[in-house]
Amino acid sequence: MSDNKYTIGVDYGTESGRAVLVDVSTGEEVATAVHPYGDGVIDEHLPGSDEPLPPDFALQNPQDYIAVLQETIPALLREGSVDPGDVIGISTDFTACTMLPIGEAGTPLCTTPEWRDNPYAWVKIWKHHAAQPEANRLNEVARERGETWLPRYGGKISSEWLIPKIWETLNQAPQVYEAADRYVEAADWIVLQLTGQEKRNSCTAGYKAIWNKREGYPGDDFFAALDPRLRHVVDDKLSRQIYPLGDRAGGLTPEMAELTGLKPGIAVPVGNVDAHVAVPASTVTEPGRLVAIMGTSTCIMVLGQEERMVEGMCGVVEDGIIPGLFGFEAGQSCVGDHFAWFVETCVPPAYHEQAQSRGLNVHQLLEEKAARQQPGEHGLLALDWWNGNRSILVDVDLTGMLLGATLLTRPEDMYRALIEATAYGARVIIEGFEKSGVAVDEIVACGGLPGRNKLLMQIYADVTGREIKVAGTEQSGAFGSAMFAAVAAGKDAGGYDTIFEAAKNMASLQDVVYQPIPAHKAVYDQIYAEYVTLHDHFGRGANDVMKRLKALKQQVLAES
Amino acid sequence: MSDNKYTIGVDYGTESGRAVLVDVSTGEEVATAVHPYGDGVIDEHLPGSDEPLPPDFALQNPQDYIAVLQETIPALLREGSVDPGDVIGISTDFTACTMLPIGEAGTPLCTTPEWRDNPYAWVKIWKHHAAQPEANRLNEVARERGETWLPRYGGKISSEWLIPKIWETLNQAPQVYEAADRYVEAADWIVLQLTGQEKRNSCTAGYKAIWNKREGYPGDDFFAALDPRLRHVVDDKLSRQIYPLGDRAGGLTPEMAELTGLKPGIAVPVGNVDAHVAVPASTVTEPGRLVAIMGTSTCIMVLGQEERMVEGMCGVVEDGIIPGLFGFEAGQSCVGDHFAWFVETCVPPAYHEQAQSRGLNVHQLLEEKAARQQPGEHGLLALDWWNGNRSILVDVDLTGMLLGATLLTRPEDMYRALIEATAYGARVIIEGFEKSGVAVDEIVACGGLPGRNKLLMQIYADVTGREIKVAGTEQSGAFGSAMFAAVAAGKDAGGYDTIFEAAKNMASLQDVVYQPIPAHKAVYDQIYAEYVTLHDHFGRGANDVMKRLKALKQQVLAES
Repeated sequence: MSDNKYTIGVDYGTESGRAVLVDVSTGEEVATAVHPYGDGVIDEHLPGSDEPLPPDFALQNPQDYIAVLQETIPALLREGSVDPGDVIGISTDFTACTMLPIGEAGTPLCTTPEWRDNPYAWVKIWKHHAAQPEANRLNEVARERGETWLPRYGGKISSEWLIPKIWETLNQAPQVYEAADRYVEAADWIVLQLTGQEKRNSCTAGYKAIWNKREGYPGDDFFAALDPRLRHVVDDKLSRQIYPLGDRAGGLTPEMAELTGLKPGIAVPVGNVDAHVAVPASTVTEPGRLVAIMGTSTCIMVLGQEERMVEGMCGVVEDGIIPGLFGFEAGQSCVGDHFAWFVETCVPPAYHEQAQSRGLNVHQLLEEKAARQQPGEHGLLALDWWNGNRSILVDVDLTGMLLGATLLTRPEDMYRALIEATAYGARVIIEGFEKSGVAVDEIVACGGLPGRNKLLMQIYADVTGREIKVAGTEQSGAFGSAMFAAVAAGKDAGGYDTIFEAAKNMASLQDVVYQPIPAHKAVYDQIYAEYVTLHDHFGRGANDVMKRLKALKQQVLAES
Repeated sequence: MSDNKYTIGVDYGTESGRAVLVDVSTGEEVATAVHPYGDGVIDEHLPGSDEPLPPDFALQNPQDYIAVLQETIPALLREGSVDPGDVIGISTDFTACTMLPIGEAGTPLCTTPEWRDNPYAWVKIWKHHAAQPEANRLNEVARERGETWLPRYGGKISSEWLIPKIWETLNQAPQVYEAADRYVEAADWIVLQLTGQEKRNSCTAGYKAIWNKREGYPGDDFFAALDPRLRHVVDDKLSRQIYPLGDRAGGLTPEMAELTGLKPGIAVPVGNVDAHVAVPASTVTEPGRLVAIMGTSTCIMVLGQEERMVEGMCGVVEDGIIPGLFGFEAGQSCVGDHFAWFVETCVPPAYHEQAQSRGLNVHQLLEEKAARQQPGEHGLLALDWWNGNRSILVDVDLTGMLLGATLLTRPEDMYRALIEATAYGARVIIEGFEKSGVAVDEIVACGGLPGRNKLLMQIYADVTGREIKVAGTEQSGAFGSAMFAAVAAGKDAGGYDTIFEAAKNMASLQDVVYQPIPAHKAVYDQIYAEYVTLHDHFGRGANDVMKRLKALKQQVLAES
């Protein structure tokens, strides 16, 4: 034992779990470990089976989550040469809505021989998109009934969220629904494994399960209007007891202490969501400073003193990010994914060879070439909808568009146009917040992209006209969790009593600040006006060609 | 000497000249020879100079045209083992408008020491685009004055044509204009070299120089309204004597006989244009059968009994293709170029490797992959405007668009979408003809593409709903010229008295016929309706975003 105290944050991502060991007093990241899920994202067939899964399925194996703990935590302790006795807490964050049916004792149905072969018994992860019909119907019913909670979610509940996913199972596999004692977020399930306590957190409940601190869940009548079998879904399959973020869920169980090498009884807070813990990890615990978690997609978070209804936001949840404040969430469904698709699909051999011979990756080469251009020089304009539009149109059926191509258009031109398109998309979201009275004065970026692409950061500053700072940690999920672990441990154990104190002492910003360049901003203002015209034309019903082409595609595939 | 008689056709293309020796009675192609131009397309600096040419310049060296004769014709005679005494005629066709200033004796100005260093003294080829300001002004004046010939050219004279190109020289290099005794099409200049006779042909005069069989040139007042110095341009620099296609221009001169190894005095018809000679070469000498010459771009030709005004056609010229009929020309500025750009710019290494390992080129691999899809399956829709839109919008400032992309979009999807886009573009042209009363019952394809891409041909049949046949010859320019040589020679010399007889005996179709597949047509009808909506939205002024982005690009480049 030493004077230094440590916490561990574990961030459960889409492909792997990432753990970080943090010095509580300084915020120093002492050690990091990553463990990829053995079964990865299950979207073709269940492990050990040849039977193809239905379209739009995306599942995971919950045993992979336990393996992450077993592999990464001993590695952290070894790598950091830290005495387990100095680790005062462990916390987790998860993708969401990532949910699973469990038995009475918390056992995932998919781990039982009886249900192992049924895909509906497995974990449906956030990007499982097979519940779209249920989401459509839910939104229809909510609108018809004038449900007052609907505007909190930008007017639309996503097919990615809890109720559509549960209802999908009820429709497609009622026997699984019947067999499930409860449905939980994986965020809560992993805490149940760590502590033996099922304590549902306010973040996933608020953002993904239509729960509200003051009003609770929608009424049973609403659920009955969806489907009579759902009338008692909250009492039968969920729970009305919801715990605020940072609350201690319990102490680490002896079994889990054995598995991880940590001391039993150390603090474990309630579950949390990757994007949401990133906010304090980026030093943000107050209104006016937007956090953009930029990776394959971008989550956008802002805090406010009051509840406001913002077009197309994913949700506003009281205490959903930071206690005492309203947390607004919006998102862009295709950012890093966009560039990755482009590099994989659209870049010719000469560029790959050039990159290799210069010891760069293709992204770096394209960034270097694209950075030589002035804004407006390539003549292109894209709509960044390769994966639909989350905010502010909330429409998964929108698709990508590139306009302005000529025979002289080069890969770096298209690459830059795609970056710019995502920046325009971010500006639409920011302007939506401001229009509704939620201030956005500054941007703090975190996630994987900011450290990898300076051009992208400068373009975002130029397009949005706002200063952009960058979080000190590159693993804002795991780091933010480590901060919440320190709060759950409390001051007396060597941690902090509030997330505000934890943020002040543990979180930091990098030295770099991206300032908008006025001449660039002036050109981008013109192109942004064109973007908005196209965005509204194709996104708000003037020409629904994207949806008709998508429907035709489905029809053709169904008939062939 | 044998019983078999032969003619030679020489097709002057953009990069090279191609000659073919044809058996007059059977149409058999006995020998072929190609000779690339020594100076190629001159667009960076004049040969032997370091001084950069102005933007949008595209010149050629007329001595390269003579070299083609000198190299290819002896090669044909050798390869075909044909006695020169059995060759009864030689004919040429050219790109157009490809024009040059000459001295009194027909010497190109650019070959004289005095003018050699002046770019305006060289041959301006068809894709020389520096006369756009003059073309814009010409169209403005013609519209203001209500010139009745304007609708014959779809309402717009192209910057590629003769009068803008002459006027450009007058504006930029008046001393060259002064020094030029005359301006001629290269099509007529080469005939002058072969025969010593300057006989201007009705095809280039009609399609490129605003000449009309019944009305002649526009009035001197019109030219004076453009520029007082142009009042007498026709009489000073051109000629009012125009000769119909197939007319004998003269006999081969002894000097040219010496150069080529042919007999002096054999028949040489007046000049012609590559795309226009392709029509009889494709067996078409009557209305109702559209000829599509498909290469880097596509020329579309139809014959009619009456003059009709068709939106966005390049021109309608009486006797312009076949004597006694009106020849309608339209065009798509980006077809093969489109696919070449895509393969060069947007196809990843894995595809190149796969193609190579299977002994295919990348086009073939993409065709194979794309052919596995049903129409509508990729969900994409493109506007084929990577090089502007020739017909029917006549707008070089339009640019390409691709819509419907997702993270699952693959190269073969985009490749197929680009092919389909050009087919939709062709259908717009066909419907424009039919709307104006010009029948299009069947399509005959020729040029380089039909033999190389079966999928493309099937898609064109499916999209247009018309049977597509393919010309027997793969070199429809040179072959068509050889047919006109047979007509100039006449029946008594072993040729034919009319192009109708020549077509009947010499031209042929391949056995393959592409039939529209009704199920495909039904899907394409739906997508075509979407194409037309986007075509009109972006092409007819509802949203001029493409032009504004292009203007912004110019502005940014000018300021940087």
